[in-house]
Amino acid sequence: MELIIIKDKLREGLNIIERISSKSLTLPILNNVLISTNKNFLNLAATDLEIGINWWILSKTIKEGKITIPSRLLSSFINLLPNKNIEFLVRSDVLFINCENYKTKIKGLSADDFPIIPKINESDFIFIDSYLLCQSLNSVADIAVPSTTRPEISGIYFLFQKNQITITSTDSFRLGEKKLLLKNTTSLKKDYSLIIPQKTTKEVINIFGEKTGDIKIYFSPNQIMFEYPMPETTHPQIQLISRLIEGEYPNYQEIIPKKFTTQLIMDKAEFLNQIKTASLFSGKVNEVKIKADPKNKEFSIFSQSAEIGEYNSIIPAKIKGEPVEIAFNHRFLLDGILTIKSSEIILELNTNSGPGVLKPVGDDSFLYVVMPIRAS
Amino acid sequence: MELIIIKDKLREGLNIIERISSKSLTLPILNNVLISTNKNFLNLAATDLEIGINWWILSKTIKEGKITIPSRLLSSFINLLPNKNIEFLVRSDVLFINCENYKTKIKGLSADDFPIIPKINESDFIFIDSYLLCQSLNSVADIAVPSTTRPEISGIYFLFQKNQITITSTDSFRLGEKKLLLKNTTSLKKDYSLIIPQKTTKEVINIFGEKTGDIKIYFSPNQIMFEYPMPETTHPQIQLISRLIEGEYPNYQEIIPKKFTTQLIMDKAEFLNQIKTASLFSGKVNEVKIKADPKNKEFSIFSQSAEIGEYNSIIPAKIKGEPVEIAFNHRFLLDGILTIKSSEIILELNTNSGPGVLKPVGDDSFLYVVMPIRAS
Repeated sequence: MELIIIKDKLREGLNIIERISSKSLTLPILNNVLISTNKNFLNLAATDLEIGINWWILSKTIKEGKITIPSRLLSSFINLLPNKNIEFLVRSDVLFINCENYKTKIKGLSADDFPIIPKINESDFIFIDSYLLCQSLNSVADIAVPSTTRPEISGIYFLFQKNQITITSTDSFRLGEKKLLLKNTTSLKKDYSLIIPQKTTKEVINIFGEKTGDIKIYFSPNQIMFEYPMPETTHPQIQLISRLIEGEYPNYQEIIPKKFTTQLIMDKAEFLNQIKTASLFSGKVNEVKIKADPKNKEFSIFSQSAEIGEYNSIIPAKIKGEPVEIAFNHRFLLDGILTIKSSEIILELNTNSGPGVLKPVGDDSFLYVVMPIRAS
Repeated sequence: MELIIIKDKLREGLNIIERISSKSLTLPILNNVLISTNKNFLNLAATDLEIGINWWILSKTIKEGKITIPSRLLSSFINLLPNKNIEFLVRSDVLFINCENYKTKIKGLSADDFPIIPKINESDFIFIDSYLLCQSLNSVADIAVPSTTRPEISGIYFLFQKNQITITSTDSFRLGEKKLLLKNTTSLKKDYSLIIPQKTTKEVINIFGEKTGDIKIYFSPNQIMFEYPMPETTHPQIQLISRLIEGEYPNYQEIIPKKFTTQLIMDKAEFLNQIKTASLFSGKVNEVKIKADPKNKEFSIFSQSAEIGEYNSIIPAKIKGEPVEIAFNHRFLLDGILTIKSSEIILELNTNSGPGVLKPVGDDSFLYVVMPIRAS
């Protein structure tokens, strides 16, 4: 292999690629990036056997070839180089890099031993604005937690329909659901209901969150692929391919309350600050109490612990329905409040033992269900 | 106790105070801040038994008194309050805090059980610009490392003389020395040679680093005190008192080379970047080699490891003296280079086994001695 490439183009790809390369002790080649040429395209590829990534850059190829090189080392090294042309030269599994007065040789491993990153040949796909997708994903992706006993809820649930994408995530204490309406009806041949590993969704946000324009999503029974084109070409620049989590996502619609016994509408910043303050006094159980008294038009937050002391505050709110006193884990409330972007927030309660629901005011696309701490 | 105080004044003091409060399991009262009144001054005090701090704030005192309250809890709570007047009320070891619609009570411990923070009554002191002192301290304070076998070098050495302060720090692999010339001859009755715990120096930088004007330093045989006045009063605002480390600081002047066999002068940013890059290829021993060849006017940096590969680069430099090839730990070199602020840097070498010295160009007040890795 022999080629010339511009440093900044290479750096952009490598900085992403090195995130996917795993730190595998049993299979050291997974630490490496596969570098290969195809005419004037340089391809960088990495995989942790769950996620695979391909990244293409235009290069001046003098002689085709391929090699694998430790990702982090290469990325750190390229980051430190001046923004000039870089020369790559491969001789028997060693990569020689020259850039101005920097001369390096890095030992690689044979490209033949690198695992194959699967391709998706199915013809069903949709286009979606990458920023919108990532924003939506961001509002729920952090809720799931790793679970070996229930692997299906450790992933993020996606329902792709003709004109809507629904994204759901839960850790069994709380659940976030975000609906993303599509401007144009897609050409999907059927609905796709699938569970994507949480790590994949975080990489999608990381890689595509700042991109403009559409990404293309391809479906297959066991895999999903996100593709972004190289600007001003029809060639892809990035392909992220992930396995799906097998299993059935729980029928979560059942636990979303369809009505409420009490509804509160209040200023979001004030609610956030009061819950934060109350959390200081909540002790080890993380419990804060919310008391709504529609008769006296009072909504108060209370927390206490035997060792620390107690806290009590009153928030102005519009209150509808029955009086209620209910306890929540403040961390779960805070996560929900922080996800909501509107200046006013809705909290719907269902007696003192049913789940609470947080919603933005004026936006039906998001809801956050949180289980109360039952009175013992 | 009953008083009214402005939130922002209280917050500033508490944020510093909580850093000094230790996380002591054996003596829980050390987690607390001692709050006490003296006429219209509110005093906050904390200690970890090595460092003690006093902080005064003007308050509207209605009834005098004192109490101790968990520092972190109080600080976190005050941080979240709006910037309004805060009311403190103490009833039998409980602090009641009211601020707008926030009402809290926090359990405290009796002020009588709080350890006494020592006072310094000696009359010898100097005034020094707080920013200059902290800048100087900052250039060497990080070098020392905790040592139970040689506690004296785990601290920072200070030599206070009539018109100069010398600050030195070492970990036995490298040593930094900073001289601070005083504009005005001080009224010191004698020289003070003392070792200050590293933690104290870091708190001095943290507390006084952004202050304008002079701080006053008091000396006593076993303690040192840093004092900063309350703006527009003669009353102190902050007093930081620290024990000193007993023992004799090593006669480090002996290891500072008085001459050199080779001198290199080069661009600092370029040298820094090349050492960083070389470090990627240095393997587990952290070794980078520097080769100065005055005859061919070449100065090169080289590193290699059997697993990774190798790196070679050439830096333009002015070279004086003998050819030499010498190996250093790149971390020690980097720390020294990063401390130097001038755009050009001097490296003086003494054959391939003597210590190297880094210095800024055009500034005799700082030097950094670094031991080479001896050829095995």
